[in-house]
Amino acid sequence: MFAKETYMQRRASLKKKLGSGTLLFLGNDECGLNYESNTFRYRQDSTFLYYFGLSCAGLSAIIDIDEDKEVIFGDELTIDDIVWMGPQPTLREKCERVGIKETMPSARIADYLRNCLLKGKTVHYLPPYRPEHKLKLMDWLGLSPDSQKGSVPFIRAVVAQRNHKSTEEIAEIEKACDVTADMHITAMKVLRSGMYEYEVVAEMNRVAESNNCELSFATIATINGQTLHNHYYGNKVKPGDLFLIDAGAEVESGYAGDMSSTIPADKTFTTRQREVYEIQNAMHLESVKALRPGIPYMDVYDLSARVMVDGLKALGLMKGNTDDAVREGAHALFYPHGLGHMMGLDVHDMENLGEIWVGYDGQPKSTQFGRKSQRLAIPLEPGFVHTVEPGIYFIPQLIDMWKAEKKFADFINYDKVETYKDFGGIRNEEDYLITETGARRLGKRIPLTPEEVEALR
Amino acid sequence: MFAKETYMQRRASLKKKLGSGTLLFLGNDECGLNYESNTFRYRQDSTFLYYFGLSCAGLSAIIDIDEDKEVIFGDELTIDDIVWMGPQPTLREKCERVGIKETMPSARIADYLRNCLLKGKTVHYLPPYRPEHKLKLMDWLGLSPDSQKGSVPFIRAVVAQRNHKSTEEIAEIEKACDVTADMHITAMKVLRSGMYEYEVVAEMNRVAESNNCELSFATIATINGQTLHNHYYGNKVKPGDLFLIDAGAEVESGYAGDMSSTIPADKTFTTRQREVYEIQNAMHLESVKALRPGIPYMDVYDLSARVMVDGLKALGLMKGNTDDAVREGAHALFYPHGLGHMMGLDVHDMENLGEIWVGYDGQPKSTQFGRKSQRLAIPLEPGFVHTVEPGIYFIPQLIDMWKAEKKFADFINYDKVETYKDFGGIRNEEDYLITETGARRLGKRIPLTPEEVEALR
Repeated sequence: MFAKETYMQRRASLKKKLGSGTLLFLGNDECGLNYESNTFRYRQDSTFLYYFGLSCAGLSAIIDIDEDKEVIFGDELTIDDIVWMGPQPTLREKCERVGIKETMPSARIADYLRNCLLKGKTVHYLPPYRPEHKLKLMDWLGLSPDSQKGSVPFIRAVVAQRNHKSTEEIAEIEKACDVTADMHITAMKVLRSGMYEYEVVAEMNRVAESNNCELSFATIATINGQTLHNHYYGNKVKPGDLFLIDAGAEVESGYAGDMSSTIPADKTFTTRQREVYEIQNAMHLESVKALRPGIPYMDVYDLSARVMVDGLKALGLMKGNTDDAVREGAHALFYPHGLGHMMGLDVHDMENLGEIWVGYDGQPKSTQFGRKSQRLAIPLEPGFVHTVEPGIYFIPQLIDMWKAEKKFADFINYDKVETYKDFGGIRNEEDYLITETGARRLGKRIPLTPEEVEALR
Repeated sequence: MFAKETYMQRRASLKKKLGSGTLLFLGNDECGLNYESNTFRYRQDSTFLYYFGLSCAGLSAIIDIDEDKEVIFGDELTIDDIVWMGPQPTLREKCERVGIKETMPSARIADYLRNCLLKGKTVHYLPPYRPEHKLKLMDWLGLSPDSQKGSVPFIRAVVAQRNHKSTEEIAEIEKACDVTADMHITAMKVLRSGMYEYEVVAEMNRVAESNNCELSFATIATINGQTLHNHYYGNKVKPGDLFLIDAGAEVESGYAGDMSSTIPADKTFTTRQREVYEIQNAMHLESVKALRPGIPYMDVYDLSARVMVDGLKALGLMKGNTDDAVREGAHALFYPHGLGHMMGLDVHDMENLGEIWVGYDGQPKSTQFGRKSQRLAIPLEPGFVHTVEPGIYFIPQLIDMWKAEKKFADFINYDKVETYKDFGGIRNEEDYLITETGARRLGKRIPLTPEEVEALR
């Protein structure tokens, strides 16, 4: 938790930006796996954390701009709670730590909000992403689940603040990145063919937990790197496999790290692996070189795609004019995701508020396959923290489908591509802060070039 | 997953038991931590798993007894899903593996249920425990969240089946218990004063993960064992501390293990620790000796409480008539929870269906502090799997409260108890199967007696 002044200043800026109305912040509740009291690890809503700092279930908050009131709604512990959960500061004491003077029992929020509506005030809320939020908005504001779209002025004001990381936020992100790097370095050291994927995951997660961190998202650690969001860990690693890892730690304050790496199951890459790895490395390094305030991140994405197309042309997998291939979307057969995303209290920062507000400043997104997965398009600004994570994949089902449709046959040598259908996928990912003059990598460096990876194997 | 015949037989028994009506099974969806697509690990609803075996999000099922129809509602994957999640069997193929021939798109379930209601059929459903269930019952059956109580005949029929574990279920539970035991043994070996609690947790969870297991619940590993459900891991272990662990593994099929152990931070217990530990050990061993078909588990709880009162009287912490003390509830100052609970696909098996149906056969529960936390009261039957986990705790806040109220002053020597307020807590826990003639401990044995614990330290 930061000093109370941090939260007070954040709220003051938000009030000034919005000018009037009532802002409703829904804290997250506990969520039961298979019955109510067997809960997943608790995770507070990130916007609630950003403005109110308290990471405990059962809270809601209101900023009533017109009345200049800030209230946290929640309930004090009973003796039964203390027997089960241990002694804790009172809610009032917790609230004082974040500069909130007024608390009310949670049962009173419905009346408070109804009164606001009766007085003709606008109640602003953010888009719900958990079913519990939907039930509350239905109960408190009378909104059917389908009609709960969130308030655009509120979203934009939050995004404008949270998109720019302060020095104290960057320090927290960097802590998360250091642990994240250690998770990857550990995997690079322990991976051997004959191991099961889950054994590698166990070693990586141990690094996070022994540093008092949670995972910022479920670890990906797979011999099927061509499957982008693969959370199956049941395969045995074989000689010749490529092993793709995407994993990150979350520090106690809630800030995330997010890195990817790809390593050979053997001590060295095969020639074919190394050729593709070097292209992916060039995409990565050229993208990093381009980072600076003012450059639209979509331009950096295009750059990374062009580097890939040039490289795949040299290998005989693609052909034709590079610029045309990228503009038309032919590269997306091999590179079906974006180059990166904002990172902060969420590993995809503020994804619940809508990519169009976080990464597109309200402008419409492309609908082109591949390009539509780019989460960040706007010109970079100092204080932005985002990932750089180009990838090259050979996805058999997608290759079969495009080949059958003769899609982009002018750009893709399907006969050659057929021989790579057992290749897998490669992704590397680092986290960057945009500075006044360029960009700075966050956290400890993980091996990135083929030489560095092989040295650690 | 078991053979399809297992699921077919389970459903056939259930249909026979209920005779008529439509049974609705709500599968669990993914749940987002901090935005929709950053999900917690996926956990299917256990009753859905029991009857339909499929562990994936987005499914619901209906058994229409009158029409003799079994339908799973869900959607086939798109090419976008395959790019992100990898190739998978179709829904129809998955359903065939569990003996379900009919599938329908998920959008059709609302109409299906409305038709049942129009025809005057009863739609039975189980009590919702996730907000997503509440939204679905509201949408599909027109029930407001407050009115969603579940169907008692359906609950009772499910409990009657799930309370009796089959041979193949016991084998799965025993696998979970073996990994659970290894988690505890690892902690007993690595714990040293100077370590942080989270470092111990990291080593234990690594054991679960490296055996391809999940956690059946969030690990408790704490120097504050007197706090019953303590998930804070930030304390440094000091010489002289007692360290209490309550943790379990969940195997791929969903079955759980659940064990507790208490170890000294030093190589040996102090005299005071050992005196209390031996009382707790006697509670445990006497309870286990009493396990057999026909004995009400509430009687075993009373037995364990009497053993404790006798022991604490010998230490000068309690006084008066033992039977009276237990009947009136004076023991609960030191033993505020129950002796154990059913275990199976849920670590507290079927807790979402209501303890009163699972452990009380519909009879009312005691409201007495301590006794009310006993989750299992009915006579034990062959096939029951449950925990044995007596405990002794010194909870400063509870002691202060009772002392101020002069509560049970005839049974409690508060002056002596005052000198134990820094003691902490002790709990040991094993898992038992009730057999035709007695009971059998499940899984590898973990050190239980003080001698065994010290030998491993």
